[in-house]
Amino acid sequence: MGFDIGLVGLGVMGQNLALNMARHGYKVCVYNRTGSVTEAFMEGGAKGNPSIRACYDLKELAAGLSAPRKVILMVKAGRAVDAVISQLAEVFEAGDVIIDGGNSFFEDSERRYGELEKKGMHFLGAGVSGGEEGALMGPSIMPGGSKKAWELAGGILTDISAKAEDGTPCCAYLGPGGAGHFVKMVHNGIEYVDMQIIAEAYHMMRDLLGIGAGRAADYFREWNKGELGSYLIEITSHVLDKVDEKTARPLVDVIKDAAAQKGTGLWTAREALSLGTPAPSLAEAVFARNVSARRDQRLKAAEALTGPEKAEPARDMAAMLAGTIEKAMLAAKISAYAQGFALLKDASDHYGWDLDLGAVALLWRGGCIIRAGFLDDIKKAFTDDPGLENLILDPSFAKRLNSSQAALRRVVSIASMAGIPVPAMGSSLSYYDGMRCTSLPANLIQGQRDYFGAHTYERLDEEGSFHTDWYR
Amino acid sequence: MGFDIGLVGLGVMGQNLALNMARHGYKVCVYNRTGSVTEAFMEGGAKGNPSIRACYDLKELAAGLSAPRKVILMVKAGRAVDAVISQLAEVFEAGDVIIDGGNSFFEDSERRYGELEKKGMHFLGAGVSGGEEGALMGPSIMPGGSKKAWELAGGILTDISAKAEDGTPCCAYLGPGGAGHFVKMVHNGIEYVDMQIIAEAYHMMRDLLGIGAGRAADYFREWNKGELGSYLIEITSHVLDKVDEKTARPLVDVIKDAAAQKGTGLWTAREALSLGTPAPSLAEAVFARNVSARRDQRLKAAEALTGPEKAEPARDMAAMLAGTIEKAMLAAKISAYAQGFALLKDASDHYGWDLDLGAVALLWRGGCIIRAGFLDDIKKAFTDDPGLENLILDPSFAKRLNSSQAALRRVVSIASMAGIPVPAMGSSLSYYDGMRCTSLPANLIQGQRDYFGAHTYERLDEEGSFHTDWYR
Repeated sequence: MGFDIGLVGLGVMGQNLALNMARHGYKVCVYNRTGSVTEAFMEGGAKGNPSIRACYDLKELAAGLSAPRKVILMVKAGRAVDAVISQLAEVFEAGDVIIDGGNSFFEDSERRYGELEKKGMHFLGAGVSGGEEGALMGPSIMPGGSKKAWELAGGILTDISAKAEDGTPCCAYLGPGGAGHFVKMVHNGIEYVDMQIIAEAYHMMRDLLGIGAGRAADYFREWNKGELGSYLIEITSHVLDKVDEKTARPLVDVIKDAAAQKGTGLWTAREALSLGTPAPSLAEAVFARNVSARRDQRLKAAEALTGPEKAEPARDMAAMLAGTIEKAMLAAKISAYAQGFALLKDASDHYGWDLDLGAVALLWRGGCIIRAGFLDDIKKAFTDDPGLENLILDPSFAKRLNSSQAALRRVVSIASMAGIPVPAMGSSLSYYDGMRCTSLPANLIQGQRDYFGAHTYERLDEEGSFHTDWYR
Repeated sequence: MGFDIGLVGLGVMGQNLALNMARHGYKVCVYNRTGSVTEAFMEGGAKGNPSIRACYDLKELAAGLSAPRKVILMVKAGRAVDAVISQLAEVFEAGDVIIDGGNSFFEDSERRYGELEKKGMHFLGAGVSGGEEGALMGPSIMPGGSKKAWELAGGILTDISAKAEDGTPCCAYLGPGGAGHFVKMVHNGIEYVDMQIIAEAYHMMRDLLGIGAGRAADYFREWNKGELGSYLIEITSHVLDKVDEKTARPLVDVIKDAAAQKGTGLWTAREALSLGTPAPSLAEAVFARNVSARRDQRLKAAEALTGPEKAEPARDMAAMLAGTIEKAMLAAKISAYAQGFALLKDASDHYGWDLDLGAVALLWRGGCIIRAGFLDDIKKAFTDDPGLENLILDPSFAKRLNSSQAALRRVVSIASMAGIPVPAMGSSLSYYDGMRCTSLPANLIQGQRDYFGAHTYERLDEEGSFHTDWYR
């Protein structure tokens, strides 16, 4: 009898996903372009596992699978995915299912979905989040594409996915075309801001309050018990606690302050710009990494440019300000999530995906990098009001913002005076203040545009488009 | 004898450009897809002008021009440009020149350049800035593409362009392919930030200091004599001064605070994200317009969300703070221009355009929307050091930043406490503080990434990539 599913691409994520499927009783045929990687896996993590069979070409893989065949690709996003799909299309048959579990750009998934449908094959673009550990123990899976593919392969994906505390699987069909990969992209965009907000809090604690890595870890451990409780806050305490074996210093103090990125964050900000959804904090988080990566320029600029006088670390302010920082992070986080969910809503409207935003929040409760209790409340907000335009309009989140906005103001204000960059917190505050402003200064911008470009403007007291002869 | 040049597209910009060319002694054949627009122009602005001839199809236009033919398109960016080019290619011959003077996306210009070269025709993508008035009196023109086209048509473009105070034309060949339209795009991206910085200053003056439109106009008029002196500051005073005929109130007070946009600003921010150039203020300016456009949501959010207690307008602070605002605008502006020029540099490196950034600054000195004396100093910075990596590293700009950064800090801090959104000023401060920071918190981000994704990190004390077993 054939095996249940094929897996192509044996990087760390691929290996762990194969082991996860085997643990759930699925028989898995694995294949990697470089055969030695497959061999190493069979001699390593998969050694003696009767549910995992190595294949050394895709024909062998196809022959080893029960019909209708199912395969999940865990290969690098981009051309490699197209190459594997076109090779698979040669050896697969109509009715078979191809799942792309990589971080593919959603437009590529739309296209691949269409191309495979023409051949009678069924495609799912399914982002997988959770890192190495999630892949092994249960990730969050965000599938979109062919409903038929979901009917055939959804069971496996659901079984291997994370389960939230109430037992609900963190995997559900999201919508047609590229919907799944769009949701995964926005997940990553939010992950960037979440991480940047934490980094800014840590920056203030380190350089303004003089709190060392070990003590900072204690704060994050404490915050993890409160409203900020989340995987990222939890691992921040672990990262800050880790001691470097070479120097016996906190490891974080010897890591170079130059952040890398793989693209999904910048895609999210680009799509927000294209769709006209304000998502400034998502963009700022990406740009903050770009600034960090220009380390050589920064070191030169530090010689040439001045800031405020270097204040003595305000040790006595520490406890008080640390409490303020916790609230400021919460307000910034709500503002950032509001931007991310507004982007999902706009994309769903634009592409006709009919996304259930509450279901998206449910998927993100467990397994993924941004998992947090907080997401239960987002689910509730969209269940209470399925047409909710913006998370900040939900009464429960409005209440939380109202009780934390003053702390965010204070932190942004202090950081600005102290010379500590707070791009994510600052932009999340500007978003908050902009979105609750009844009278923005855009009237002046419209006046300027009409002045130099005759672009017309609207009036507050009358319907229509108006143009003024400003030169008269 | 044939006419010197053809012009397709008789919107306001097209009409004014035709009149400008005629005034400079060029004989112009004009064509518009809708013939009645051509008729109206011939009975209006072009009435009795012997240098302007109406054509009612493109064949007639081609027949009316001296060889090698030259035509400039002033049609809406997008498909309309491709449609006109393919029609022109039917009636033009090898050796003829097609100039796209619209706001085309630079990748489209790259493609069109390549397609026309294959047909032996020469293409220039030449952004034109200056609005209606500039088109008529002399705009800034940013041509890129075929060097041959520039040799044939550059004289006309140079003649009709604006001249800086020292007489230098605001038009020069910038580079191959889409270089010209890329430069125009970044010009517009900078224009968005310039306008947003002004809008934020106005917002603070109006809502925090209680300064009415008329008095605000006086401030801008005064500032126009100083370091901020520029077209946008000048017209801001005119816009603020204008009285509404219907209500006898300042016109700006009855204009709806919902800003529109045509796309070049968001393209700029998207390209910055794609190239990995930090340009947060350019993105924030676009998102600020998006926030303003969501006016209905804002009015709802204003009911639900709180800010600081509404302070009485601090009238006694006005003079002092207004001086601070001027300096804050200068610092924010330098930070934003630094981001824009860094984007040009990165694009030039990436696409191999060999852009002369000093020459770009020269082109922007006159005619265009962002024209300002300030650009002479940018020209000087890139002449003094052609390899200058970032404008903030130029000694003269560093000096200005050092004397204005404290004011920017103060304004961002006060606005944050007062509930006034300052996305452009806040992000320009974070950019400044980030770029001069020797130790950003990106070490923590790299630690987190290695923790959950085995993405590796670099160390400060040793070359190489490292991975830690965090779970041990």
